[in-house]
Amino acid sequence: AFSVPAPLLQAQSLTDGDTANIMALKKTALQSNLAYEIDESLTTEVGPRLVGTPGDAQGITWAVAKMKQLGFDKVWTEEVQHVTWTRGVAEARIIAPYPQKMVAIALGGSTGTPEDGLKAEVVEFKDFAALEAAPEGSLEGKIAYVSFRMERKINGAGYGPAVKARGAGPSMAASKGAVAYVMRSVGTDNNRLGHTGGTNYKDGITRIPAAALSNPDADLLSRTISRGKPVEIFLKLTAERKDDVPVITANVIGEITGSEKPEEIVVMAAHLDSWDVGTGAVDDGIGVSVTLAAAHHIANLPERPKRTIRVILFAAEEVGLVGVKHYMKDHENEIAQHVIGAEWDFGVGLIYEMVPGVGPAALNHIRELAHLLAPLGVSLSPKNDAKGQSDLSLLGKAGMPAVNFSPDGMKYFDYHHTDNDTLDKVDPEALKQNTAVFTIFSYFAAQSGIDFRK
Amino acid sequence: AFSVPAPLLQAQSLTDGDTANIMALKKTALQSNLAYEIDESLTTEVGPRLVGTPGDAQGITWAVAKMKQLGFDKVWTEEVQHVTWTRGVAEARIIAPYPQKMVAIALGGSTGTPEDGLKAEVVEFKDFAALEAAPEGSLEGKIAYVSFRMERKINGAGYGPAVKARGAGPSMAASKGAVAYVMRSVGTDNNRLGHTGGTNYKDGITRIPAAALSNPDADLLSRTISRGKPVEIFLKLTAERKDDVPVITANVIGEITGSEKPEEIVVMAAHLDSWDVGTGAVDDGIGVSVTLAAAHHIANLPERPKRTIRVILFAAEEVGLVGVKHYMKDHENEIAQHVIGAEWDFGVGLIYEMVPGVGPAALNHIRELAHLLAPLGVSLSPKNDAKGQSDLSLLGKAGMPAVNFSPDGMKYFDYHHTDNDTLDKVDPEALKQNTAVFTIFSYFAAQSGIDFRK
Ligand SMILES: [Zn+2]
Ligand SMILES: [Zn+2]
Ligand SMILES: [Zn+2]
Ligand SMILES: [Zn+2]
Repeated sequence: AFSVPAPLLQAQSLTDGDTANIMALKKTALQSNLAYEIDESLTTEVGPRLVGTPGDAQGITWAVAKMKQLGFDKVWTEEVQHVTWTRGVAEARIIAPYPQKMVAIALGGSTGTPEDGLKAEVVEFKDFAALEAAPEGSLEGKIAYVSFRMERKINGAGYGPAVKARGAGPSMAASKGAVAYVMRSVGTDNNRLGHTGGTNYKDGITRIPAAALSNPDADLLSRTISRGKPVEIFLKLTAERKDDVPVITANVIGEITGSEKPEEIVVMAAHLDSWDVGTGAVDDGIGVSVTLAAAHHIANLPERPKRTIRVILFAAEEVGLVGVKHYMKDHENEIAQHVIGAEWDFGVGLIYEMVPGVGPAALNHIRELAHLLAPLGVSLSPKNDAKGQSDLSLLGKAGMPAVNFSPDGMKYFDYHHTDNDTLDKVDPEALKQNTAVFTIFSYFAAQSGIDFRK
Repeated sequence: AFSVPAPLLQAQSLTDGDTANIMALKKTALQSNLAYEIDESLTTEVGPRLVGTPGDAQGITWAVAKMKQLGFDKVWTEEVQHVTWTRGVAEARIIAPYPQKMVAIALGGSTGTPEDGLKAEVVEFKDFAALEAAPEGSLEGKIAYVSFRMERKINGAGYGPAVKARGAGPSMAASKGAVAYVMRSVGTDNNRLGHTGGTNYKDGITRIPAAALSNPDADLLSRTISRGKPVEIFLKLTAERKDDVPVITANVIGEITGSEKPEEIVVMAAHLDSWDVGTGAVDDGIGVSVTLAAAHHIANLPERPKRTIRVILFAAEEVGLVGVKHYMKDHENEIAQHVIGAEWDFGVGLIYEMVPGVGPAALNHIRELAHLLAPLGVSLSPKNDAKGQSDLSLLGKAGMPAVNFSPDGMKYFDYHHTDNDTLDKVDPEALKQNTAVFTIFSYFAAQSGIDFRK
C-alpha cells in the first residue's frame, strides 16, 4: 500500500479536481505523439535556424503559426538583435610528415583564415591548463592544438571540463603568439563530424581562426604528432564575423492565460535558434516540441489554470544567451511575477531527476510535485540549488525560482552541435515522458497558489 | 572431459610437433598487438588509398616495406591498370517546398553533373524493383530516388538486397528518362555521412550522375515527399570519369616460402586499395593487417611450413575486382597450385564461423581445423560452398578451394565506404582473434599435405 508521508499532507496544494486533471493530463501526454509531430514539422519544414539566416526567420514564422494552431491564448514576438556571423567552409589537412585530410568545423564566431588558408607547425596541449601554462611567445607562428577528450557521463558533467577549451582556447593561444587554434571536438562520439559551438574572443587579443577537429581526426593528428617529427597542418576557414552588421531575430512567446491570477507567470522555456549544421531536431527542437505540446495539453482542459503559463522560445541562445538578455530588459518590471520556470535544453532521453531551486517553505510543495512525477521515473534531488537551464539561468540569477530536469544524457553529446542533430536521434517514447513531466510541472505550478520564493 | 570424435582421428594431418606449433602460434597471436600496430601504421602514415591517387602509390610502397620488415622471404609487386575517376565534390539540397541542405556522396565511377549542377523534380521508389517497374519515359527530366533501407544483420545479409540499387540503379533510371539518380545510402547507421561504392553503367544507356544521400537526409527527403507536394532538388557532382586515361597501381605479394613443396600455395588475401573518404582502416586495413600479422607469426617459427604461404594484397578491389583479374592472367598457369585460400574483407568483429568450400574427402581435414579453431569461438558451418570472399571469389570460381570466415558484422555497414572508416572503429581484441584464426588456418593448410580439391 502507498502511505503518504506527513510533510506532504501539510503541503497539500491541489484540490481533488486538480489532481484528477493531472492524472488526465499525464495519460494524455503519455499517449499523444504531439511533441514528436511538432519536432517532425520543425525539422522537415524549417530545418536549421542559425541566427540571422532565412531558416531562423522561417522558424519564427513557424513557431507563431504553431502556437496559434495549438490553442495558445496570446502569441507574440519580441525583437532581438545580434551581429552577423557566417560559417563559410572549413578545410584542414596534415601536410607533413604524412599528408592526410582532416574533418574540421569552425567554432561559432570564429574569424576566417587568410583567403588561401594558412600552414604552420602544430603544437599539442593535453588540456586548456597546459595551453595556459605555455610560456609567453612560445607559440609564435604556430597553431595551438588542445586534444582534451570529453568524458561520457549520464548527467553531461563531461561537458564543463571540455568546453573551456572551446570558449577561452583561441584567445589564450593567441596571447602566446599562435596564428590559429584547433581542438578536439567537445563531443563523446567517434564520428567524422566536427562539433561546433560558440567561442569568445577576449578584448585586446588578436582574434585568430579557431576550429574543432572531428574526434577521429583529432586521434589521427595526435597519433601523427606522437611519432616525434614536426607536424605541419593546413587550415582554411572562410568564416566571417561582421560585428557592425546587425541581424534581427525574435523571441517567440505564447501564453495560456491564467483564469484567476493572469499576472503571475509560470515559465516553460526552450530556444528556437540552432546551429546551422544539423537541423536542430534535438538542440533544441526537443525543448520547443515538449514545451509546446505540454502547453497544448493544458489548453485543452475545460478550464484554464489559475496562473498564466508562458512558453518562451528564446532567440539566439547558441550565440551567447542573446535572446534572454533582451527578454530580461523587455520584462524588467515583470521578473518578480515569474513565479517559477523550467527550461528544456538537454533533451534526448528519459528524465530521471528533478532538481529544485526554491525557497525553504516551498520545498514541501516540491515534494508534492515529486510524488506526482515519481511514477514517471523522476526522483527528487536532495539539492535545492537549481537556477534554470540555459536561457533561464539568467532569470534564475535574477531571483526566479526554477526546477531543472535531468535526463539520461549519455548520448546527448554524440550529436550536440553537429550535422548529426537530426530527427532520427529523437526518441518518440522519451518525448512522451518529457512532455508528461513538463505538463504536470506547469499545471501544478499554475494551478496551486504556491509562492516558490518563500 | 573432451572426447575426440572418430572422423577426426581418421583425418589426423598434423604431427605432435605441428600441433605444438599451432598452440604456440595461437598464444602468440592472441597476445600480440601486431595486427593493430600494422593498421595503425597504415592508417596514420598512408591513409586513404583510392586507385590512382598518391595514397594508393604510398600504400604500395608502405606494403612492400612492411612485408620485408615482417620477415617475408619474397616480396614483389605486379602492375595493374585501371581508368581514372575523381570524386570531386557533391552538393545536394531540397529547393522546394522547404529549402534544406542534404549530405550526399558521389557513387564510385559516377559522371558529374553540368558545372552549375542540375535541378529537377524528384520521384521516389521504395526499391530497385519499383524503379524497374516504372513505365518507359515516365522519368523524363526527373531525378529518380530509391529510398530502400538496408537491414542490419549479423552476417551482412542486408547488403545484397540494398546494393542492387547502387550498381544497377543509375542505368535503370536513365533508361526511363531520368537526368540524375539519388539513393538512400547502403548502410545501417544514422550518421550524416553518405556511403559511396561503385556503380556500373550499362553500355548504350546515357550515363547520368549518381549519388547516395546520408541516411538522415534520405529520411528528410522521404518525409518531405510524403507531404504530397512536388519536391524539387538540386544536385551538383564534380566527379569525372576518364575512361581513356589509365592509372597504374599494383598487387603487392609476399611469400613465406615452403620448405618442402614451395610450388604449392596457401593464399591469405586482402585488398590494399580503399575508398578515398575514410582512411580504409576497416575496409580493408583490417584484412591487410590480419594477413600480414598472421604470416609474420609463422615466419617467426624456427622452420618454414612445407607449403608456401602467399599473402596477396590486391589492388583496385573497390572499383570492380580489377587487381585480381590481372592476377588471374599473370598466374594463369599456376592457379591449380593454389591449394586453398582465405580472404579477409569483412573484418570488424569476432569471427564466429568458418564456411569451407573444399572437396568431399577434404571435409574430414576441415573438421580437424575446426577443432583447432573452436576454442577461439569459431564454429564450423554445415555448408560446404565457400568460394572465397571479395577478390578470391574469382579464384574460387576458377577451382581454388577456399574457406570463408564470418565475423560479427552488426556494425560493419555503419562505417562501410564512409568518412567514418577510421582506426577508432577497429577493435584491437577482435584483431587478435582474427589473427589467431588466420594464423592457424594458414599454418594448418601449409604444413599438412591435404589436397583440399579432393
Ligand atoms: Zn541548446
Ligand atoms: Zn546548443
Ligand atoms: Zn573491401
Ligand atoms: Zn569496400
